[in-house]
Amino acid sequence: MLHKSLLFTPGPLSTSLTVKQSMLKDMGSRDHEFIDAVKDIRNGLLHLAKVSKEDGYESVIIQGSGTFAVESVISSVVGEKNKLLVLANGAYGERIAKMAGMHKLNYEVLRFDEDTVVTPEATAQFLQQHPDISHVAGIHSETTTGLFNPIEAIGAVCKKYGKVFIVDAMSSFGGVAMDMKAMQIDFLVSSSNKCIEGVPGFAFALCRRTELEKAKGQARSLSLDLFDQWAGLEASGQFRFTPPTLSLMAFRQAMRELEEEGGIPARERRYKTNKQVLDEGMEALGFKPYLKPEIQGHIISSFLYPADPAFNFERFYDKLNKRGFIIYPGKLSKANAFRIGNIGQIFPDDVKALLAGIKEVLEEENVSM
Amino acid sequence: MLHKSLLFTPGPLSTSLTVKQSMLKDMGSRDHEFIDAVKDIRNGLLHLAKVSKEDGYESVIIQGSGTFAVESVISSVVGEKNKLLVLANGAYGERIAKMAGMHKLNYEVLRFDEDTVVTPEATAQFLQQHPDISHVAGIHSETTTGLFNPIEAIGAVCKKYGKVFIVDAMSSFGGVAMDMKAMQIDFLVSSSNKCIEGVPGFAFALCRRTELEKAKGQARSLSLDLFDQWAGLEASGQFRFTPPTLSLMAFRQAMRELEEEGGIPARERRYKTNKQVLDEGMEALGFKPYLKPEIQGHIISSFLYPADPAFNFERFYDKLNKRGFIIYPGKLSKANAFRIGNIGQIFPDDVKALLAGIKEVLEEENVSM
Repeated sequence: MLHKSLLFTPGPLSTSLTVKQSMLKDMGSRDHEFIDAVKDIRNGLLHLAKVSKEDGYESVIIQGSGTFAVESVISSVVGEKNKLLVLANGAYGERIAKMAGMHKLNYEVLRFDEDTVVTPEATAQFLQQHPDISHVAGIHSETTTGLFNPIEAIGAVCKKYGKVFIVDAMSSFGGVAMDMKAMQIDFLVSSSNKCIEGVPGFAFALCRRTELEKAKGQARSLSLDLFDQWAGLEASGQFRFTPPTLSLMAFRQAMRELEEEGGIPARERRYKTNKQVLDEGMEALGFKPYLKPEIQGHIISSFLYPADPAFNFERFYDKLNKRGFIIYPGKLSKANAFRIGNIGQIFPDDVKALLAGIKEVLEEENVSM
Repeated sequence: MLHKSLLFTPGPLSTSLTVKQSMLKDMGSRDHEFIDAVKDIRNGLLHLAKVSKEDGYESVIIQGSGTFAVESVISSVVGEKNKLLVLANGAYGERIAKMAGMHKLNYEVLRFDEDTVVTPEATAQFLQQHPDISHVAGIHSETTTGLFNPIEAIGAVCKKYGKVFIVDAMSSFGGVAMDMKAMQIDFLVSSSNKCIEGVPGFAFALCRRTELEKAKGQARSLSLDLFDQWAGLEASGQFRFTPPTLSLMAFRQAMRELEEEGGIPARERRYKTNKQVLDEGMEALGFKPYLKPEIQGHIISSFLYPADPAFNFERFYDKLNKRGFIIYPGKLSKANAFRIGNIGQIFPDDVKALLAGIKEVLEEENVSM
């Protein structure tokens, strides 16, 4: 077995050894050193979103996966008298709709095809027709396909109609320059194991304070109470419930390494270069992308299965795996595709190595392209 | 700053270096190696509770802290037509009552003083008077004080009256021999960073399958849906939502090391020895335990603040911390106390070193005992 595998996935990702080595020291959850690290992380996250406490924004860390933080926001900020509009063009939008149903929120879903973006025009029209909507939730990088929804334009529509805007930027935050204030985002959610290149264990919500404060007493569960989680962190710097101490120590190191790389602009450039190398290489091998290039983001790409019935995804996956390359299955409802991520501690040479591996496997499997 | 601190807390705990080193390799959440590790962990946990799938028990891992798993159980298994009785004699029992309130469950709370155990007699009497109760939830090791509730006797009462029994064994499972079947426990909850000596990041519920199956479609939240989490793990071996991959790899190593130590009986002996050394040493220093010895468990002990006003807990804590010993503040509603844990990778010599540190600090602070 190879000691090292490279993860070409939407997360957990490949991380640096130094990030992982930050987990080699035990850490008490109420200890000063840990509390200081949490404070650094919370302030640093706001900085990455180009906002600050002084601007009226707050950073809340939530234990669990990204979905836990999305659910914390959805089930805490949409009150009994509010109504949520979910903009869905993939599995992650549908997941928010499912949460809204489980929490018995008032909600509507505006659906778009998986291979098209959410449009600001359709959103505006829906909001005109449904003036009782108070909150709008959308996905930035829809990991189902890898498309980028036009969040800035949708944010402008939300602003125009006076709606609270919740953005799931799970797989993109840290890998795409985002100004939360300029993009009119009230709640932005992402997780530890995405473009900031930490390990899994927690997620976070960046929140406009005036809207966060309205969530007091509204949450539908104790563990996912966004307001209480924030209030606890503010009061003592401590978590209400045991945090993943070592994942947080790894994340602080990952934030330092992001800064050393040159911040989000430099990371975005690296990921875009990875994508370019991948796109060109996959095209040369004869693969077809699922999405039109103009809506394909640089986080993760979907490729259609080759038409040749000799192509078997399980074998393809396993043989790449044995070579140390971990790719990702598809999640499309209408097409057979697999996904390759451009994010994490992977560099253009790693993408070239993956492409060489794919070429070898196709040859071994006698797949004609 | 000391490189190494010893944690005398209820968790996160001191863990072995080899446990932490298991986190040095990136791991894809859908990768075979990871899926195999999760399977090992789930089966191993049942084995530690002296049950198996063949006996009709199931193991469900839940992302987040222990509270997330308790809430997952409470909010999934108590249906609309059910009624929960919470047995409370500390903060963790009260926490379950709070969850029940937030989820608008039908519930009652039977309260006992913090320095007394829940009695099977009072429980039986309450169940006689309230025949509509369907589920009973209790705490094994009440970390608020460190007392052990008589779970086996309460389980027998639940069995007699035909109630589903939910036990929060957060801080004790792995450090106390427990036979889930013999103790009549239907749901047992604990977490990764307790007596199995892993790092924080997840928790787990061991469940009697026939009761778990009744939770289908009953959950009040998506992330904490116990049945769906189980069904997902059973169907593909994969988590519904990103798991803390590296915490799980550390936990598998921790389970191996528990086995190498001689299993739960050997670990229980070590913890009991730690406690004995601690008790004798603290008594020699003049400290008074909060609890009567007959109800004090061997997981964590509460000690009253010395009467001398020269004793300042913050300074006491900080000075021990600088010496590399991390203790734990109190959580009592009626008395000033602090807590010292006997669990984790700490050995009698570590406890002796802590006692020497405490003696030094008391002398430095001129506290007369």
